Amino acid sequence: MISISRLDTTAADFRQALDRLIAWDVATDDAITAAVAGILADVRSRGDLALLEYTRRFDHIEAPNIANLTLDPQELTGALMALPAEERLALELAAQRVRTFHEHQIGEDWSFEDEHGSRLGSRVTTLDRVGIYVPGGQAAYPSSVLMTVIPARVAGVREITVTVPTPKGVKNPLVLAALAIGGVDRVYTIGGAQAIGALAYGTQSIGRVDKIVGPGGAYVAAAKRQVFGPVGIDSIAGPSEILVIADGSAPAEWVALDLFSQAEHDADAQSILLCPDASYIDAVASAMDRLIDGMRRQHIIRASLQRRGALVKTTDLNEAVAIANRVAPEHLELAVADPHALMSAVRHAGAIFLGSYSGETLGDYVAGPSHVLPTFGTARFASPLGVYDFQKRSSVIEISAKGASELARSARVIAEGEGLDAHARAAQARIRGIDHNRRE
Amino acid sequence: MISISRLDTTAADFRQALDRLIAWDVATDDAITAAVAGILADVRSRGDLALLEYTRRFDHIEAPNIANLTLDPQELTGALMALPAEERLALELAAQRVRTFHEHQIGEDWSFEDEHGSRLGSRVTTLDRVGIYVPGGQAAYPSSVLMTVIPARVAGVREITVTVPTPKGVKNPLVLAALAIGGVDRVYTIGGAQAIGALAYGTQSIGRVDKIVGPGGAYVAAAKRQVFGPVGIDSIAGPSEILVIADGSAPAEWVALDLFSQAEHDADAQSILLCPDASYIDAVASAMDRLIDGMRRQHIIRASLQRRGALVKTTDLNEAVAIANRVAPEHLELAVADPHALMSAVRHAGAIFLGSYSGETLGDYVAGPSHVLPTFGTARFASPLGVYDFQKRSSVIEISAKGASELARSARVIAEGEGLDAHARAAQARIRGIDHNRRE
Repeated sequence: MISISRLDTTAADFRQALDRLIAWDVATDDAITAAVAGILADVRSRGDLALLEYTRRFDHIEAPNIANLTLDPQELTGALMALPAEERLALELAAQRVRTFHEHQIGEDWSFEDEHGSRLGSRVTTLDRVGIYVPGGQAAYPSSVLMTVIPARVAGVREITVTVPTPKGVKNPLVLAALAIGGVDRVYTIGGAQAIGALAYGTQSIGRVDKIVGPGGAYVAAAKRQVFGPVGIDSIAGPSEILVIADGSAPAEWVALDLFSQAEHDADAQSILLCPDASYIDAVASAMDRLIDGMRRQHIIRASLQRRGALVKTTDLNEAVAIANRVAPEHLELAVADPHALMSAVRHAGAIFLGSYSGETLGDYVAGPSHVLPTFGTARFASPLGVYDFQKRSSVIEISAKGASELARSARVIAEGEGLDAHARAAQARIRGIDHNRRE
Repeated sequence: MISISRLDTTAADFRQALDRLIAWDVATDDAITAAVAGILADVRSRGDLALLEYTRRFDHIEAPNIANLTLDPQELTGALMALPAEERLALELAAQRVRTFHEHQIGEDWSFEDEHGSRLGSRVTTLDRVGIYVPGGQAAYPSSVLMTVIPARVAGVREITVTVPTPKGVKNPLVLAALAIGGVDRVYTIGGAQAIGALAYGTQSIGRVDKIVGPGGAYVAAAKRQVFGPVGIDSIAGPSEILVIADGSAPAEWVALDLFSQAEHDADAQSILLCPDASYIDAVASAMDRLIDGMRRQHIIRASLQRRGALVKTTDLNEAVAIANRVAPEHLELAVADPHALMSAVRHAGAIFLGSYSGETLGDYVAGPSHVLPTFGTARFASPLGVYDFQKRSSVIEISAKGASELARSARVIAEGEGLDAHARAAQARIRGIDHNRRE
């Protein structure tokens, strides 16, 4: 038997129960914040030496220098060659589909001419140097390598540096193979806050980058927050979640397995089902009970569903979408007969899966969009990781002589209103017929 | 006489001198970090009461409740009506041009169908609730109101909340007028970390928002960094800077005034000229000496140029562009006869001003692009504030029955490689012809 909350939207306390369920307390752990600040300062001042020490202490690797913490291209290619054909082909198919999807995201320049013959526009350029953090240990996923590296490659990043911890020196061959497929420039077997420090500040051996992306644990998240400013970061990742809206048209087992898929990540992961059909909710619950014992990670699934999962009876599908907008889930499955009818009302979700064939698992691995998505309600304001994370825009302003003369009059008035004298004079100098050297 | 560094790229120590000049030490002040953490925790737990207390303490305003710290729409409209016609028309022209420019940035949905009839795509939606911080006191600029509010409005944000401190209750009529022109939903005369806390967490009277944008001082920057995660932020703003590349074709006075314009913001602002023509550099220096005494803010200009300014002799224009790419300036003026020839090599700049008529001042006020730009080297990875800061994307995944059957085989292989059993089962369930309820 699975233990999971059952909620009903008509209950008087539903709103509070939902708020409790989806609360993400970012309560930054002061001890972690302080420890990370110390590590970052140390990496900044001592560089390589600090990296070697922390790697010894946290990952139990004795390395005399950074070269020993570097994976060379041959090792990556070797790992790829050594894979069973089935795994290699699956990763290569995934990579190709991720590439194809992300090619649609490459930014474009644009400009227009105004009535004075001035031209205004926007120019897209790509980041020079990107650092990608790949988690190690339990959560070392080759799919995450593809989902972060390939968008950066498609954007045209010149230099991609990857850090991936290998506790006790244990390397994950699938991760190495994925790095070979994705195509990266440098790989260091360094993790935690020390890796973020190395990427942000650079050391004697490791070049600093312009932006750091990729998920990590509490130390990595704290370090990203602390280095943010002079270096860019993608986001502070929270636990992973799925919200399924079902009308009863999908096999209950599929929905049960999709809820399990999310729950098996870790005990903080969240799986929620919204459905107006009480008997279908029962069918999903029965399927979960039936399937759970066959799951290898059933302990994690049980813990996650008990702590954070919920089966919610709604009055109708529209209410379910309204709740989804409030939750702003990372993954939103519309396991309904007519998903397009619902989608138009969806405002906040990292990825939307339409119809029961679009199981989240397919999106996690092979559909094409990156599976690095805004977690735990941040889809209210954030987007999936994409090519746009590795490109940026410059405004382009080309004012004609006539335009300058016209615009400078207004610019001068506003500048004077703001008390910015030099601004006003710089504008005035561009008004035709005014003696530039004489103060009026 | 102006005191400003003179550098030559052929000097042996040029690289170090440049690095020193452009160093932005983000060395977070521990005292500020701790004070801000205390204020945020207090606003979070006590809400309105904490806001009233901090506003009393820091802004010297006695307000019994938040209604007294609220600007009503009539007051904003009244400020607009009371402006001299010239100021009103200038602000309205600026607003119209900012609106026109940003309409080009509205995101578009796209999708494509793959070989199995599955459809993959991206959907653009707009943020519901945005908080805009407007600095008060000395640096309260109506232009900044337009440059932040209008992109949010063009994006279609449902609810824009503005906080603007009014120390000692002194309101800036131009700022109020700009708020009326921009069109905002709520304005609170609250500032500092307490304002950021109110926007991030909400209080009894103030609704929480999804993202907070806009520049502020050290406390505001620290607060934005600390609330980032569950709430979005735009960036951590550094001091403002300009880099001018000149070939001698522009009037030296124009370049001198453009360097002054940046320098007059504050003593941390940075103005750099790169030019291969030593005699033109002398002409700009002479113009600065001639013009400085006529500047109302000459003390700030002198301090800024002495601390952070530089006139740099380069070997040629290409080298100047290479240095600009290293600096990644907020504002890059190409005050040269053929700016397009140089622009193609520019990789990193917040805004690029082409030709000598395109003075930064025109971009600051009326050209159209937002003047909220990535500062101090962050143009390496960041973009101007734009409509895209107020919109986000959802990936859309619609897998056909045939596509599910094909893709699930690869997804299952990768999931098994990652040890994620439920993922593998969820994929397998979608392979046609497999009995969903039986474990193979």
